[in-house]
Amino acid sequence: MAKIEFYYDFASPYSFLAATKIEEVAGRCQAETVWKPFGLGFVFKETGNHMPASVQAKASYMFKDLARWAEFYNEPFKMPSIFPINTIMALRATLAVDDPAKVKELSLAIFRAYWAEGKDISKPEVVAQIADGAGLDGQALTAATGDQKIKDRLRDNTADAIKRGAFGAPTIFVGDEMFWGNDRLEMLEYHLKGK
Amino acid sequence: MAKIEFYYDFASPYSFLAATKIEEVAGRCQAETVWKPFGLGFVFKETGNHMPASVQAKASYMFKDLARWAEFYNEPFKMPSIFPINTIMALRATLAVDDPAKVKELSLAIFRAYWAEGKDISKPEVVAQIADGAGLDGQALTAATGDQKIKDRLRDNTADAIKRGAFGAPTIFVGDEMFWGNDRLEMLEYHLKGK
Repeated sequence: MAKIEFYYDFASPYSFLAATKIEEVAGRCQAETVWKPFGLGFVFKETGNHMPASVQAKASYMFKDLARWAEFYNEPFKMPSIFPINTIMALRATLAVDDPAKVKELSLAIFRAYWAEGKDISKPEVVAQIADGAGLDGQALTAATGDQKIKDRLRDNTADAIKRGAFGAPTIFVGDEMFWGNDRLEMLEYHLKGK
Repeated sequence: MAKIEFYYDFASPYSFLAATKIEEVAGRCQAETVWKPFGLGFVFKETGNHMPASVQAKASYMFKDLARWAEFYNEPFKMPSIFPINTIMALRATLAVDDPAKVKELSLAIFRAYWAEGKDISKPEVVAQIADGAGLDGQALTAATGDQKIKDRLRDNTADAIKRGAFGAPTIFVGDEMFWGNDRLEMLEYHLKGK
């Protein structure tokens, strides 16, 4: 069974879009997914890449483009009033979850809380509440974000992604084949189906 | 009939990819196209945007991504040995053509000469030969690239695109709706078909 490694940061709207669709793609391709939270800010810093929104004309376009994709995917979407946002704590909380299925469920819930409802996911109490809603122990998870073991998981995921060629988010790997952006899910599917 | 305005620079590989497909998209949507050569280097400069290839990890990915798209489109593609390249003269030569159908034919021929055959399209004699092959008077066209009227056409197309929000290439407009990249042709089609 092919393995799709999905690197994402809650701060990235295109990661959110990809997150809502990647399981469907995997299902159609009989592939399995591994969800890997990583720190996009650090990726930008290490690779010398820029936030798309750092160019004004690009930022204006991006907001329209995101709204279009959300409509195309039939996903509620609203540009959050807090943007950019610090997602390190939320990413670590996700990495404190052991059950892979719950990692996906919690990640989608955090993505939607931020990108559809505008919640301040930089706050532990907000993330804890989202985790509770996903049937997890929110308080335990946010408390675990201070553990070195959990911090290392985020650092390692980020370093691995950069080493493999990532410079933005979402970044998806099938072995050494890299796909950047929700707009490459079609290409990912084409690749997985053996062309 | 909806009008698709297609801004492109021969230096842009994603413009090349879009150029090979845009007439098919227009045909399916019963729309007409207007091909508008513009100067991408000036767009980058004016908007503060960066060449994608300016970030090393992005450049490495881009070359793979381009090869994938070319295969997906069934278009011969080879990264030219001369890259980046000065395309101002070739763009002006295209703008010296009066017949819109010939503008498209010549543009595609120049795109393919560069992106499939690696020809040095910064040279007037190379562009003249390509134009001859498209049934045009190559020498007259390359001579016309020195005319102020022709220079102004390129300058005006570029300024118009920037004013309308362009920051990269290809950039496609349907009225005020802007689409950036060959990877948005599907979204363009979705938009034109009234969703």
